[in-house]
Order: sequence, then C-alpha cells, then structure tokens
Amino acid sequence: MFVVGVDLGGTNYAVGLVDEAGTIIRKIEGKTEVDYGAARVIENLSNSVLRISQNFNVEAVGIASPGSIDHEKGVVRFSPNFPGWHDIPLAEEISRQVGKRVYVENDANAYALGERQFGAGKGCQHLVCLTLGTGIGGGVITHGKLLRGSTGIGAELGHMTIHPDGPLCGCGARGCLESLASGTAIRKFVCEGYRRHGESVLFVSKPPEDVTVKDVFDAAKKGDRFANEIFERVVNALSVGIGSILNIFNPEIVVLGGGIAQAGDFLLDPVRERVRNHVLPSILDTYRITKSELNKEAGILGAASIVFERIHEK
Amino acid sequence: MFVVGVDLGGTNYAVGLVDEAGTIIRKIEGKTEVDYGAARVIENLSNSVLRISQNFNVEAVGIASPGSIDHEKGVVRFSPNFPGWHDIPLAEEISRQVGKRVYVENDANAYALGERQFGAGKGCQHLVCLTLGTGIGGGVITHGKLLRGSTGIGAELGHMTIHPDGPLCGCGARGCLESLASGTAIRKFVCEGYRRHGESVLFVSKPPEDVTVKDVFDAAKKGDRFANEIFERVVNALSVGIGSILNIFNPEIVVLGGGIAQAGDFLLDPVRERVRNHVLPSILDTYRITKSELNKEAGILGAASIVFERIHEK
Repeated sequence: MFVVGVDLGGTNYAVGLVDEAGTIIRKIEGKTEVDYGAARVIENLSNSVLRISQNFNVEAVGIASPGSIDHEKGVVRFSPNFPGWHDIPLAEEISRQVGKRVYVENDANAYALGERQFGAGKGCQHLVCLTLGTGIGGGVITHGKLLRGSTGIGAELGHMTIHPDGPLCGCGARGCLESLASGTAIRKFVCEGYRRHGESVLFVSKPPEDVTVKDVFDAAKKGDRFANEIFERVVNALSVGIGSILNIFNPEIVVLGGGIAQAGDFLLDPVRERVRNHVLPSILDTYRITKSELNKEAGILGAASIVFERIHEK
Repeated sequence: MFVVGVDLGGTNYAVGLVDEAGTIIRKIEGKTEVDYGAARVIENLSNSVLRISQNFNVEAVGIASPGSIDHEKGVVRFSPNFPGWHDIPLAEEISRQVGKRVYVENDANAYALGERQFGAGKGCQHLVCLTLGTGIGGGVITHGKLLRGSTGIGAELGHMTIHPDGPLCGCGARGCLESLASGTAIRKFVCEGYRRHGESVLFVSKPPEDVTVKDVFDAAKKGDRFANEIFERVVNALSVGIGSILNIFNPEIVVLGGGIAQAGDFLLDPVRERVRNHVLPSILDTYRITKSELNKEAGILGAASIVFERIHEK
C-alpha cells in the first residue's frame, strides 16, 4: 500500500510517497505561498500530490498542518502560521482536486503518530512526543489513541508552566516550557546576556542575533561559561517538564524531536539524570527518554502515518 | 439495577447500595483494620457487601482503593495506605466470598468516573478531577476513557511541578502541586510561620499544630494577614497547576473535590480568575472550573460508577 504524506509549513511544504514500511519513495518540496491565499496553497499541494502519485496506486493522503484542526472534517480552523485562515476545508478541497481521500491532523499529533508507526515509539500504546524547535510542540498517545482534547487543541505541552516567575512566553503567560527551552528562548537568552558575557566565545565571530542553538551547544561542550549557563537552564526546564509529563501520563516513552533534540545524548543524558529528581518513585524506571528516529523525514512520515492510523481505526 | 460501591480507605471504609440514578439506598461504615492483615480487610469488606446486598438483586461490586491498581485483574499492587500489601487479589477474593463480580479501580480514577456519572461532569467526555485533601489526587477522562498510563500509575496531577524551587514534597521532589496546595502543605505553612506571625488570629486559641485548613480560610476571609498569605499561595499554585492541566488536556471541565474544595467560590473565584493568566488564548472560555457535586458521598458513588463504567464498556 502506498500513501502520500504532506508536511505543510508556513513557508515550505514537502510531499512524500510512502510505503507501509515507511520508505519515502519519492519526494517533492515547494513553497507554501501563504501570502497568495488559501486557494493557491491548496492548488500547490494538490499539484504536488497528483505529480507524486503518478503510476502508483495511492490509498489516501495525510496532511500534517500547524494550528487548530478539526480532524474529523479535515478543516484548518485557524493557525498562527496561516494568517487569515478560518475554517479552511483543506481535506475536502484537496480531495476534490486529487480524487483521493484526504485526512488532516495537527502537525504535532502527526509527529506522535509517525514516531509510533515508524520511529522510536514503534508499537507503544503510551507515548509522548516533544518537538523542540522554534517553539515546543507536543503530541500524546495514551491507550493507543491521540489525545486531542475537547476542542482539538490538547497536548500543548510547550505551554506547561515550568516556572511561574519565568520569562514571558509568546502565548502571554510566564515560564512556559517554550519560554525556557525552545530555539526562540535560547536565542533570546543569548541576546539578553550579550552585555554581561561579552567574553563568551559565542560573540567572537558573530553578532548576538546571529548565534544559533548549535553554536550555544557547541560552546557549552567546550566549557564556555555563558553557553553552559544557557545549556543548564534548558536542561533544567526540560527535566522539570518531562518529570511532570511522566507523572501525568505514565508513558512508555518520551520522544524528543526537532532541531534542538539533534544534540542527542549531550542534551539527553543530563535530562535523563535530572528527570529522576522530579518523578514519583513508582514512575522511576518505567519509561525511556529518547531522540526521534525520524529526523528530517518526521514531517512526511508523520503525515503518512495519519492515513495508516485512520485505516487502522476502522 | 443496583450496585454496591466500596470506598476503601487506610483507616475507614464505607459501603453503599446504589441505584442507577446515584441514590445511596443503604450505607455501612466500618474500620478497615489494616493492621490485622489483608485477609481481615477482605473479610470486613465482604461481610459488609453481603449485609448491604440483602433482599436486593445486586449486579456487581465496585471498589475504589488507594494505591497502584491492576484494574484488569482487580489487584492492589501496592499502596502507601496499606503497608505490606503486594499484589493482593482484592477482586478475586471478595468475589469468591460474596458471589458477585467485583471491579477495583484507583480511588482518584473512581472519583473522576463518579463525577462523570453522577456529578458536575455529567456527560462530559473530557474531564479532569483534582481531589484537594491531605494530599492531592488526580483523575483524568479523555475522549470518554480513563487515563491510566502504561503501568496504571498515570494522572498523578498532585505531582506536577509548580515551582522547581518550591517546598519539598512527600514524594521527594520539590514544588509539586501537593507541596503547595494540599492540606498537609497548608498545615506545614502554618507551623513554619508561627514564629514570624504570632499576631495572627490563627494562634489566638490554638497551638499551631491544631490549626485546620478551615481555620486558615476563615481567618483569610476576615482579612488576617498571615492567613491571607497562605491562601494566596494556595490560589497561585492551583492556578498554575490548573492552567497547565487545561493546556495539556483541553478538558470541558475541571472538578475540584476533597475537603479544601469545600471552601467553594471563596477559593474557586480567584483561581478561575488567575488561571486565565496561564492558559493559551485558544483555550480561554473552552472550560469550566467547578466544585464537586458529590461531596461526602464521592467515595461510594465513585466506587459504584466503576461498575457502570465496566458494564458500559462491554
């Protein structure tokens, strides 16, 4: 069986032809062109789906979209990434143009489905995914099912409060996980610390606003004091957050994805160690914390797994 | 249809004969007698179940027990309230003695089921319960099903971290919700503040160790400064915790039970107000925060609703 997975982002999209083993047979990438309106986005996606499906018997199409999704109707209700979109019937429109069934799911949810179908959480019934990128997204599977919540906005794990007196988050609250451990947070810490820490290697060859998360982690590895201070802050925030997640969901596995998780065991080992200070004794040793195995293909594979999930549900 | 609900506690137990409308037709209370061993407890419960069932056609028995429960087998794996209990096959033993099917569920989970069946969360598919008592327990229903987690210890909402630098919790971690907003926490704040706040009305007629949560809330109502300080701390901790819960579960309703929730709107109104500072804009106005409607009968009705839940599941 072949399915098409569409990883829809605010700037770019990727479409992949995927088989049941999770092999991406073909891939097309393109610009989303949000500024040209929803109809243009739908046309771009439909064209790519048609092109990639040629000569293959495609079962259905899965779309992973940011924002609040009505997964039953395949409607994007709203999304910070798509200004002006309100109740866009993405599934219906694309289905009409490509002649296949189309399913839409929130991207963080799709990510969790992908990790369970093809990645680190293969076969798990209780799985929590955190995507550590520009922001922090969450996807939760409990008892084999996605946690969507009553209005479909659930599993916003990036907006758990870690420290009530912490930095202001983009959402308006203080001390959310996202305000302490996302790429945006790390870059903000760099800029805020520039004056106090002019001696840091971070600032030798770059202005503060060009310093990347990778720069910070690399400098921390080499023992740079300011970089280490930021790194510690990230590790502590993640440890507190994952500790609460473990006490709340009692999952088999916590999968960390997104750019920041690429740091691998350099980040994960201290997190694994400190999480133990925050979990109940009865939770200790019931879980694994691991890096995503899907990496760059997480978007397409997550989108493809939406289809496998829906077929499975029937 | 009639069922028997057993509210099993570490010191006392209560057994009720309950009909489908949630009316408690008869009730028996007794001492659990944990010190005499598991067999004695099982005998006590069985005798009460037999006695209360006389002349009624009882469908099955539901037992709400503290601790880690294997709900499929009806086994109490362990419980801080029952020292020495390991894998006690409560359902099987009691079923043998009373000749009825017996189901066992964790007490906080049973509480959530009871609120959905008979209480404030009637008909809700997405419901979170917090029991604010000596400790803080949590019960979560998402998409109509109890959240139990991979090893059955899930929904430990009392052990979400609210403040990583907060007070030491009984679980060994710092700043858990339970360490900031439980009865134990409040009494600890009173004793710790005694020296600094000898002028408080709390200490006029009582030594600090005899001051109750009700005393603190009553004094706060009357404007006592120290009592207000404690009250504020409780309100803030609950607001942060419930804010995270709303972002994580996107429930229709959060039900607060246990002794502390008896304070009603005096406690709930400031919590409702401040929670708004911690939730995502898209979550605002999607939920209700309300006091339990089951009150003193929550234990028996929760236990009875275990049976209704299992029958419904089939």
